[in-house]
Amino acid sequence: LSQLSRFRTEDEFVRWLTRLTQGRASGLVVGIGDDAAVAHPGRGQEIILTTDLTIEGVHFLQHLHPADVVGHRALARALSDVAAMGGKARFALISIAASRSAGRKWLRDFYAGVLRLVARHGVALVGGDTAVVGGPTLMDVLVVGEVPRGKALLRSGARPGDRLFVSGRLGLSALGLEVLRSRKLRTSSKFTRALRAHLYPQPRLQLGHFLQERRLASALIDISDGLSTDLQRLCRASGVGACLHAENIPGPPAKTFPLLRGTASRWRWALDGGEDYELLFSVRPRNVPKVPRQFHGIPLTLIGEVVRGRSLFLALPGGRKVPLAPGGYDHFRKA
Amino acid sequence: LSQLSRFRTEDEFVRWLTRLTQGRASGLVVGIGDDAAVAHPGRGQEIILTTDLTIEGVHFLQHLHPADVVGHRALARALSDVAAMGGKARFALISIAASRSAGRKWLRDFYAGVLRLVARHGVALVGGDTAVVGGPTLMDVLVVGEVPRGKALLRSGARPGDRLFVSGRLGLSALGLEVLRSRKLRTSSKFTRALRAHLYPQPRLQLGHFLQERRLASALIDISDGLSTDLQRLCRASGVGACLHAENIPGPPAKTFPLLRGTASRWRWALDGGEDYELLFSVRPRNVPKVPRQFHGIPLTLIGEVVRGRSLFLALPGGRKVPLAPGGYDHFRKA
Repeated sequence: LSQLSRFRTEDEFVRWLTRLTQGRASGLVVGIGDDAAVAHPGRGQEIILTTDLTIEGVHFLQHLHPADVVGHRALARALSDVAAMGGKARFALISIAASRSAGRKWLRDFYAGVLRLVARHGVALVGGDTAVVGGPTLMDVLVVGEVPRGKALLRSGARPGDRLFVSGRLGLSALGLEVLRSRKLRTSSKFTRALRAHLYPQPRLQLGHFLQERRLASALIDISDGLSTDLQRLCRASGVGACLHAENIPGPPAKTFPLLRGTASRWRWALDGGEDYELLFSVRPRNVPKVPRQFHGIPLTLIGEVVRGRSLFLALPGGRKVPLAPGGYDHFRKA
Repeated sequence: LSQLSRFRTEDEFVRWLTRLTQGRASGLVVGIGDDAAVAHPGRGQEIILTTDLTIEGVHFLQHLHPADVVGHRALARALSDVAAMGGKARFALISIAASRSAGRKWLRDFYAGVLRLVARHGVALVGGDTAVVGGPTLMDVLVVGEVPRGKALLRSGARPGDRLFVSGRLGLSALGLEVLRSRKLRTSSKFTRALRAHLYPQPRLQLGHFLQERRLASALIDISDGLSTDLQRLCRASGVGACLHAENIPGPPAKTFPLLRGTASRWRWALDGGEDYELLFSVRPRNVPKVPRQFHGIPLTLIGEVVRGRSLFLALPGGRKVPLAPGGYDHFRKA
């Protein structure tokens, strides 16, 4: 395979990328190729800014994750942050520091994954930076979104008495990673859904926008590091506590997943799994009946309520309450 | 020195950074601490988006560049891109993948360098991402700027007959790096200015904004990779050629810089040096008299003209013209 250095100059690489991203995007004045991109925001809109690092060996493994999956996942993380503000995603910039071993084909497949996902959400890839590094491949994805003035859904709006909902099924992505790592499980059709959840997570942009437009959520966060960790973030920002009902948390279906048998707690997958990119949101009691059971096929599940204080609890079947500690992924603790 | 992992959790690091960046910035709705930042752009403004990677071993060396210098330079690169569009810088996001050997003190000094520079230009640090990596330290700096609708100064506006100007003195930063590398030269007071140019380059935001407001520049680019390389970029985007007058190019003053003696051409420093972050701009003949000789103490020098065709020339003293090849830094060629 040809090396990245087959792009003889950086300018040649930029021209290649410019061709890939051609086609006028709405609101875009200047795309890739000048000193910076220029865009005009919609009338009455505020801009949302978010950026996420994706690192080989931390967020993906060269031998397990195909290049298009790496592109998809890197972008999905940042898009999910825009969903978590109730906004629309508009523009993306990608900086990539490619390891010397990444070939031209790898880069092409990486951008194929990126471009498929931006196309699906009407996002324009408008810039970035590029370099070759001695260390692992690393990318930083910036997404610019927009939301009507004053309407961004923050983490800090939850009040005692609010109900807590999550979208989708949690823990599927973490399970998918276990499956991907196991040669035996990988071939089983039982795990197709978990594998897909891990390889191609879908940022919940439409759902976030729906919650914002209908004013259904009092606080909103995306679940990137596990329900237990992201629930703590939402509660800290709001100055509240929470109680979750273990039985109601939509985890991977235990019966069909033999992998789950014998694990200390079947809820651990859903609580600490991470990388699900589902949405966790609080709803005022009067708005609970307005939350649909499904949104475009994605289940919305009532999993608990916001309480006074600062503590998080998990109510087990039978009624016993245990403290809920954040157990999701943390780059600093693992370091 | 305490390790980065002394921030026991990522959330703790984010809280530390939030304290550092407190104080309400104009136009900022949500800063660090939620899923994303939210800001409102000024009325009638377009947004400018630019991002730049800074990599240990490529853009800085751990043993030569103090942490605050690394922060300053990383941010200056991105601010310079906004200057090169004629815009105002508003918001910055910094993603940093810190090598395991970077300590808490290093991070603190890094952000001190960043925060001094953002304060000088009225920019708010509103977000970013963070991780610890096995490889070299790496950061991606995104700056959001703004410019009145339709007024961004592009690379593509130069026409044959336009005159070419540069700000400041070119090659000082490259010379400063040579000085920094030499134990002997480093102690000489002769090189203070070159060292300063290398360690603390000043993005020409006010100048870029001035050229935009007065409609003086037909095309504008910042000189990040060397005059020869960035001139080629401007000419390619405009579909023109150029001829520079070697004698007029403001390089490091040869007499006071013994290092320059014996180098093949004293202009090479100015032509290929890179990292000067000065501005190169073209001016319609009728506007040439309106370009001041200095702008806030920074000399603006007429160095050549835009010509038909696609070729770049250097006119040597005596009148001989030689082809001018881009010789600046290119991450792909060096890789």
